[in-house]
Amino acid sequence: MTRTAAMLELENQLLQPGVKGLPITEPLRQSDIGARRWSVLNADTSFPVALLKASSLEHNLRWMHGFCDQYGVQLAPHGKTTMSPQLFDAQLTNGAWGMTLATAAQVQIAYRYGVRRVLLANQLVAPADIRAILTLMRDDPSFEFFALVDSSAGVARLSKAAQQAGMERPLPLLVELGLAGKRAGCRSMEDALALAREIAAAPALELAGIEGYEGLLVGPDRNKDHEEVRQFVTHLSDLLRQADAEHLFKREQILLSAGGSAYFDFVASGFAQVKDLSRPVLPVLRSGCYLTNDHGFYHGLIEQLNAREGLAPGQGLRPALEVWSMVLSRPEPTLAILGMGKRDASYDMELPRALVSHRPGAGTPSALPEGCRIEKMNDQHAYLRLPADHAIALEVGDLIGCGISHPCTTFDKWPLMLVVDDDYRVQRAINTFF
Amino acid sequence: MTRTAAMLELENQLLQPGVKGLPITEPLRQSDIGARRWSVLNADTSFPVALLKASSLEHNLRWMHGFCDQYGVQLAPHGKTTMSPQLFDAQLTNGAWGMTLATAAQVQIAYRYGVRRVLLANQLVAPADIRAILTLMRDDPSFEFFALVDSSAGVARLSKAAQQAGMERPLPLLVELGLAGKRAGCRSMEDALALAREIAAAPALELAGIEGYEGLLVGPDRNKDHEEVRQFVTHLSDLLRQADAEHLFKREQILLSAGGSAYFDFVASGFAQVKDLSRPVLPVLRSGCYLTNDHGFYHGLIEQLNAREGLAPGQGLRPALEVWSMVLSRPEPTLAILGMGKRDASYDMELPRALVSHRPGAGTPSALPEGCRIEKMNDQHAYLRLPADHAIALEVGDLIGCGISHPCTTFDKWPLMLVVDDDYRVQRAINTFF
Repeated sequence: MTRTAAMLELENQLLQPGVKGLPITEPLRQSDIGARRWSVLNADTSFPVALLKASSLEHNLRWMHGFCDQYGVQLAPHGKTTMSPQLFDAQLTNGAWGMTLATAAQVQIAYRYGVRRVLLANQLVAPADIRAILTLMRDDPSFEFFALVDSSAGVARLSKAAQQAGMERPLPLLVELGLAGKRAGCRSMEDALALAREIAAAPALELAGIEGYEGLLVGPDRNKDHEEVRQFVTHLSDLLRQADAEHLFKREQILLSAGGSAYFDFVASGFAQVKDLSRPVLPVLRSGCYLTNDHGFYHGLIEQLNAREGLAPGQGLRPALEVWSMVLSRPEPTLAILGMGKRDASYDMELPRALVSHRPGAGTPSALPEGCRIEKMNDQHAYLRLPADHAIALEVGDLIGCGISHPCTTFDKWPLMLVVDDDYRVQRAINTFF
Repeated sequence: MTRTAAMLELENQLLQPGVKGLPITEPLRQSDIGARRWSVLNADTSFPVALLKASSLEHNLRWMHGFCDQYGVQLAPHGKTTMSPQLFDAQLTNGAWGMTLATAAQVQIAYRYGVRRVLLANQLVAPADIRAILTLMRDDPSFEFFALVDSSAGVARLSKAAQQAGMERPLPLLVELGLAGKRAGCRSMEDALALAREIAAAPALELAGIEGYEGLLVGPDRNKDHEEVRQFVTHLSDLLRQADAEHLFKREQILLSAGGSAYFDFVASGFAQVKDLSRPVLPVLRSGCYLTNDHGFYHGLIEQLNAREGLAPGQGLRPALEVWSMVLSRPEPTLAILGMGKRDASYDMELPRALVSHRPGAGTPSALPEGCRIEKMNDQHAYLRLPADHAIALEVGDLIGCGISHPCTTFDKWPLMLVVDDDYRVQRAINTFF
């Protein structure tokens, strides 16, 4: 199916009552959502509701496109963040070279919705998962796929499976260079180079490039992070040069990929230095969280990146994702219970940040005073602590708008999110597939 | 739609490639899953995969049915735990009086799959959510619904909405008695009784009972918990008696509801003492986690409950939910990277517990030695730390079976779970709707 046809099918689906956020009592065609002109500020929707701000999304798409152009790098945004066909489409339309994904199931979903170039930033090990990928490659010659490998065992499995499947083209692999004490990846340049040689020599495989993930280096000391990231980028580049010197790459281009959502500027500037190899190098960043940013963990990192890029506040990536909920109970003077919980908002890095309150109806939301904070969440509730010394006339039925920390773990809680304009009027919906 | 028809529709759906856990490259009718006879131990499925053990589920269903009969209480299991129509159906078939749910959206989903008696263990505040419930009640006279209320503001909203909707029958409400410093609920017997009077006097509403949630009393000191739970159950019973003495209840039966998954035995025995009121009392427990139990937080609490009930090991509730994943990388001697992360298993109370390993093929899984533990998870990966002083021949491609802590936050990560027999052969699938 083409991207357009698949997207149309999604837009034309009948949504059933019970989809979180939708205020419907009868089935509703997804494409008819905008015509309802629901206002979140008027409490037209169900609550809790997850919102994407259209203007911030568009700004971030344009910003990242410009950033990559400026540095001469490509973008394969990590699709695991959103797993949303409409957002994949927006990313590809705004210049993305392909999509990064984490599992074979995610690749199958992305393929269904028209994605035709995938970098699996993970090892591909389970027989069923290898089969899923080889089937897509065999059935569609236009489907480009790349995976990582960090062990001889992994190379052997993939070579055997690809041979048994009788593939007409080799399976392209990137050697993953890892970091001591961190996640997957070869732990030394020597091991990585040896593995590159194995891939180049293995039947039904081909060496497509070198990969690493510097995002694991985010620690408490930013200066230390920066130093380690720069060093890691140098190691990746050195490994690429060594493998090229041994003529291990046979494809038209050599992939060089890294780049999470914290330090992709260091990666981009480092990769831009890698030139004069036997064939063109294609540097590929993989940030997933740039698209929505957040109000927590990534916000802080992105503010620092903006400063490094010399950007004034507001010029850089903007937070685009909020979860709104209603005050269900005001059982104590300094406590409000919200109808939003672990089922609705990220809690893995930080709890949501209560940003604004609004009494449904006319007017604009008010910033919450200092000291208002979500101090706990249960599965379906949040505990909003209010400062004792500051009178807040918060009532049952008032709305609380929250920012979140770590988009990935909020997206996976919403099969459908509503896209709103700057007045919080619903324009349309996007789907996610987790 | 009847329960049977709705379930058939689910079973007959075509599952698309990309549903987590399914090893498919073509659409597959859900009811055909069992015929495939996939063996998890043979690595036939995709990984990670979430598994429900059929024998443990069946044991737990029977056990809880017997427990409730023995104490003379009813069960409205909390459906938010699983949000699975097939599991709701199994619970109702095994004697459950109705389902408990947490949000209007959850009620809409349960209704779609045939649930006709719902206790919403939450405040119902948002206009769209109130409308959703009133629509179900208006369109289907057989749909029984009860909600909680803890404020005059809540009573006023519901009375107004029910009057405006021109309901032919009153909306039944339970007064929520809360706990100082905890979640929703009236903070004093006086406030709760005053609210009961308001409900009894409000147009379009009726007072159906008294409710509380002792599950919030789980703290570090079990003896203190027990004392506080007993006291709270007494408060609930006293409140019920006082409201009855004032002739505030008009329905045929008076509901008295509490009961999470930790201390439901104290609730059951306490409620059994409440007799000789103006009309029959219907005690309703609401445990959600009894169905699958877990290998962490609830397992410990349930073992203690089993001991209080005088049950030998294995006679009580059993863990039924596991997440299996594959070793993707063995980058360091004491580290294995698994293809399972925050997208796949609970991490809010404890990280998953690595129970067994298995090399795909014949044989049975081996218990992992002491000291093997998941020490961290990213979105799509887990870090399994292996003891340095104990040789474990764990290889890329080996399987790791994990127990989880807190079923609610694992269920919400799987749109589909596989039900397996004791040999980990797949029998069928269940769906979830989050």
